Amino acid sequence: MKNIISNAISKKDIMESISSAPNKDEKIIKSAVHRNSQLTKPVGALGRLEELAIWYCGWRQDPKALIKNPQVIVFAGNHGVASLGVSAFPQEVTAQMVINFERQGAAINQLCEVAGATLKVHSLELDKPTNDFTKGAALSSDEFETALLVGWNSVDNAADLLVVGEMGIGNTTSAAALACGLFGGVAEDWVGRGTGVTDEGLILKVSVVKDGLKANEAALSNPLEVLRCLGGREMVAMVGAISRARSLRIPVILDGFICSTSAAVLEKYKPGFLDHCVAGHLSSEGAHSKVLKQLNKTPLIDLNLRLGEASGGTLAINIIKSALACHSGMATFEEAAVSGKS
Amino acid sequence: MKNIISNAISKKDIMESISSAPNKDEKIIKSAVHRNSQLTKPVGALGRLEELAIWYCGWRQDPKALIKNPQVIVFAGNHGVASLGVSAFPQEVTAQMVINFERQGAAINQLCEVAGATLKVHSLELDKPTNDFTKGAALSSDEFETALLVGWNSVDNAADLLVVGEMGIGNTTSAAALACGLFGGVAEDWVGRGTGVTDEGLILKVSVVKDGLKANEAALSNPLEVLRCLGGREMVAMVGAISRARSLRIPVILDGFICSTSAAVLEKYKPGFLDHCVAGHLSSEGAHSKVLKQLNKTPLIDLNLRLGEASGGTLAINIIKSALACHSGMATFEEAAVSGKS
Repeated sequence: MKNIISNAISKKDIMESISSAPNKDEKIIKSAVHRNSQLTKPVGALGRLEELAIWYCGWRQDPKALIKNPQVIVFAGNHGVASLGVSAFPQEVTAQMVINFERQGAAINQLCEVAGATLKVHSLELDKPTNDFTKGAALSSDEFETALLVGWNSVDNAADLLVVGEMGIGNTTSAAALACGLFGGVAEDWVGRGTGVTDEGLILKVSVVKDGLKANEAALSNPLEVLRCLGGREMVAMVGAISRARSLRIPVILDGFICSTSAAVLEKYKPGFLDHCVAGHLSSEGAHSKVLKQLNKTPLIDLNLRLGEASGGTLAINIIKSALACHSGMATFEEAAVSGKS
Repeated sequence: MKNIISNAISKKDIMESISSAPNKDEKIIKSAVHRNSQLTKPVGALGRLEELAIWYCGWRQDPKALIKNPQVIVFAGNHGVASLGVSAFPQEVTAQMVINFERQGAAINQLCEVAGATLKVHSLELDKPTNDFTKGAALSSDEFETALLVGWNSVDNAADLLVVGEMGIGNTTSAAALACGLFGGVAEDWVGRGTGVTDEGLILKVSVVKDGLKANEAALSNPLEVLRCLGGREMVAMVGAISRARSLRIPVILDGFICSTSAAVLEKYKPGFLDHCVAGHLSSEGAHSKVLKQLNKTPLIDLNLRLGEASGGTLAINIIKSALACHSGMATFEEAAVSGKS
């Protein structure tokens, strides 16, 4: 199974690629900063669009880069803890929503169209939920590696911007456990209402997260092990895709709570690794702001979304596209014969 | 001159149209709210996108509306107070930037392309700046009416979303005076750095605003008179366009400080008149947040832009487009055969 998906790439290769990951090109950044200072606008008047454009050019090694081929990938997985009643929706919804994605009926389909992005959906063994993490590790080492490779292999070489997202009934519980395992604190700090559980449901989620952390105590010192023991296949796959994107110098827009928490595994594993990522939006799922604070990322959009499925990240595509369109398409003061400051 | 531009429409007609302006269609809103509750996502999970879609459908009288034809209009005008040295840039830049707009070299050209919006630019007698308002009214009644009609007539009947913006060296000073005249307080509350004046320049701007308010004290009880006495042609034209948009049921995205302050004239004149408008973004020009607070509008984007020329409003087009794409394009739970809440 592994070899069919990976074509000879292994987890070991991915770990090596993370260790030797490329960096932004500082020479190109210098040249992009210079260009920015010459454009027909007061310096700084485009605010964060200017910073985004320069950051993007640095990653793409092109001082006049444009975004032409954004890619959105949604990974779907099922969770053993769903059987404990942690979600407002039944587990069958994960597979039903995958069909909805394929038939263009979901929010992410419409958002991709407005963003001019291609959408790929990867189902990860939906008929085989992860183990209930209150009783031990959610995934075996083999299952973890398989999901990581699905993510790694899902990234299109030709993409110039990547958004990753997820669908998985029960996965805010899993992400809360992961966040608590990575960042510490108590379960209550990280548990939120997800798709909309009641007060009672919220209490249950907290107790499930506590049990999960207890059952997997031995894993908590290693970020990748925390992910294997408390995460889900779609979360592992996002980590694989984000890693692959950096190796290909493709900037990434993070989606909401589950995506950002999964990405945080990489930041914990290798500080600075998420430099090629921006936070697309601030989710209204309670703990997302805490995760972004840990990652030192300021979201681009804050419109109370809490849907997952890459929706907030995809909404941010046109902002980054706009930043590059201005940076690379505007005339300089000289070209336009516009007078500078008095 | 007036009749050439207006085709028999007069200021009196515009005032009458404002008095009898249409409202959102409450029946359509009810139907849009119902549709929203059936879509394949947890209710509320698209946050403000859901509110935006319902609001837009109500204005367009279509429960499954889409945005296909957004229009951006930039009005340019020159200001007598520019000769007092209130801007970091020389006055000739207004006309130079208009040429830059026409040659596709400015930020707004690139932003319109990403937003799929058509751009129109209207120069308002650039060779004839307004009077220096520290010495009396900026515009005569005839000049005011002419500018109002330019704005009114600039709106395309077939547009389904409108962004208005401006270009005018010196106009943050004019807008600060207008805001102070409309909302009270002291000049210091409303004056900011505009295109980037020094500390010295800031002190000068405050004193110019104070002098302007003193010289036009008699006008301060009537919002339209405050606009005539302290505003500029591009600001009056924006008021004309925003009024026309409401009469045509075209929702409007407000741009930054100067646009929002000009729009506030209408809200002061007839409370509730700006219900067809959303705040596109929060400008980093200091007083913009205060103006939006007065208008009770929450901006869609906050990325430290302070360029004017409709840039922040245009950046918000794709957000509203996305809201409608989701609302009108998504499948319902029934259509997609997705299970609802347990």
